[in-house]
Amino acid sequence: MRINGEPQRTICTAADGAVEIIDQTRLPFELVTVRLQRLEDAARAIADMQVRGAPLIGVTAAYGLALAMRADASDAALAGAVKQLAATRPTAVNLGWALTRVEAVLRRTPSSDRAQAALAEAEAMADEDARTCRAIGEAGLPLIEAAAARKSGEPVNILTHCNAGWLACVDWGTALAPIYLAHQRGVAVHVWVDETRPRNQGAALTAFELGHEGVPHTVIVDNAGGHLMQHGRVDLCLVGADRLTRAGDAANKIGTYLKALAAADNGAPFYVAAPASTIDWRLTDGVAEIPIEERDPAEVTHLAGQRIAAPGSPAANFGFDVTPARLITGVVTERGVCQASEAGLAALFPERAAA
Amino acid sequence: MRINGEPQRTICTAADGAVEIIDQTRLPFELVTVRLQRLEDAARAIADMQVRGAPLIGVTAAYGLALAMRADASDAALAGAVKQLAATRPTAVNLGWALTRVEAVLRRTPSSDRAQAALAEAEAMADEDARTCRAIGEAGLPLIEAAAARKSGEPVNILTHCNAGWLACVDWGTALAPIYLAHQRGVAVHVWVDETRPRNQGAALTAFELGHEGVPHTVIVDNAGGHLMQHGRVDLCLVGADRLTRAGDAANKIGTYLKALAAADNGAPFYVAAPASTIDWRLTDGVAEIPIEERDPAEVTHLAGQRIAAPGSPAANFGFDVTPARLITGVVTERGVCQASEAGLAALFPERAAA
Repeated sequence: MRINGEPQRTICTAADGAVEIIDQTRLPFELVTVRLQRLEDAARAIADMQVRGAPLIGVTAAYGLALAMRADASDAALAGAVKQLAATRPTAVNLGWALTRVEAVLRRTPSSDRAQAALAEAEAMADEDARTCRAIGEAGLPLIEAAAARKSGEPVNILTHCNAGWLACVDWGTALAPIYLAHQRGVAVHVWVDETRPRNQGAALTAFELGHEGVPHTVIVDNAGGHLMQHGRVDLCLVGADRLTRAGDAANKIGTYLKALAAADNGAPFYVAAPASTIDWRLTDGVAEIPIEERDPAEVTHLAGQRIAAPGSPAANFGFDVTPARLITGVVTERGVCQASEAGLAALFPERAAA
Repeated sequence: MRINGEPQRTICTAADGAVEIIDQTRLPFELVTVRLQRLEDAARAIADMQVRGAPLIGVTAAYGLALAMRADASDAALAGAVKQLAATRPTAVNLGWALTRVEAVLRRTPSSDRAQAALAEAEAMADEDARTCRAIGEAGLPLIEAAAARKSGEPVNILTHCNAGWLACVDWGTALAPIYLAHQRGVAVHVWVDETRPRNQGAALTAFELGHEGVPHTVIVDNAGGHLMQHGRVDLCLVGADRLTRAGDAANKIGTYLKALAAADNGAPFYVAAPASTIDWRLTDGVAEIPIEERDPAEVTHLAGQRIAAPGSPAANFGFDVTPARLITGVVTERGVCQASEAGLAALFPERAAA
């Protein structure tokens, strides 16, 4: 998508084989491109959240293996690089998936060809991710078009939480992809952007993305969505997911569950947009089985290095919550929209459900 | 209650007849006392939220009339002062209630005695408020004791939203009064303190209050409560209210409704603590009838003067939401706990319900 009118991806290969990323910790106030030259650069970019979002973390890890292979393409170096990258964000499912995929390719590649093979695989994954997100957009677009038909010219009001846009992926995004397509095709949309405390990815990144694409939007605090839904000011909710169980429970940024409750209480459709790689077919009961990352309490007590909570008061920082499938109207995937249920997901992805 | 071990009230009369308040916009980092000398000072203190919280707004407005009468005790000045103070905050019903009460006293008082009569009435209201809050504490205490009995020694985990503590009142608070009494009487409690964006009254004020009283607590973002309830980590919710309808719908700080939904979804009791003066007997349907204040969007986009949202992105700032009575387990009042229903409230306050 675009920044200042220029098409961008979150990650790409430079002419000299280095990897370039947008440093997302500097957004929305500075647009800084960082060059990753070595394995350590890629690991640090993930750990420090210069790149974030499950799909982008996976692709960056794949590029990280390519950088590692440029320096040392031995079996030992490969194993070490996989281990180092896997430890950067222990809860991200796509990270392990991406590393396993590239490692499998490299294991059957002679070490002399590994650097090139790893780079080719990383680039293929980046392209695939962009195609997948675009397909999610096409699948979700009819939901917005249907809402638009009911509104006879008034903008469709869509509430989203956190950042499930192109900055979380390579391009297009997941939850935002249908919104971008709708906007490009002339469907009037307006997005309520949840701020998304404590890291404010909504106010900082989603609002930034939407602004640069010219999509009308309004930032609100995370507390506001229920009130808006009570007053009919949300036509649908569209969020991403970090992990889905086979039964359709969705782990996503903390606070997503509260919006799903409000949507159910007010009859607003609540959709989760996610690629098949997000589905963890081993799990059924999301609340019971999905581990929830606890992050540094300073993310809650401080903002931009300044304390905002009362001095001396402790804080807790839960990264995600789980929205039960019963609260989800549908899952928007690269193969279409399905019910948030084992039957729904398995019908779209029979080969994965069976595996 | 105490700050640094010293007993404090939020508002009091100085020796020279001026009014002293704690400037709550400076908390939790600075303890600054502000002197209100004129009507305009009182109006500004309310509008700028140097004082906030429905009960304290009402008492401050009463003091504001006393200050106005010191300058000009004519009928015209009285009417003008009532109008000016009533316009400072639209949602709090106590404001109108307090103004009506003092105005009625002053209308039957000769103008020569009005300044003194207004001050006496304001001081009486402050004392009454402290007594009322203490009574709310006594009424709510058994709810915490009952939860403690079920937990056999483990602390009772109570979630609260915004600040319904002594800083919102004159002393004791509403939602926090039962917690303070429980703590003083040796019942082990732990409070989950919702940060309460956009003004962070939870992280700043509630955490400050609890810390100075030695009550164990943990600050969380507003997004976290649903996750905690899903995992059985909240034994009860206890919040204040800015306005209750006769049917028991409760307007309170934006986001309260989302917590009530989560409590209902997880079987956690959800109590609203409020004095009878908060009940607006003219209204029944809170969502339809209670006007919701929209505040400056800069409270959302900026924090401590610094922009936190993406440059150029607009924001909306809704101050309150309405929790329907069906989601409220009970209302804790100065006369006891009742069902959040017309029958429940009328049984406790028959003389008001009939009026």
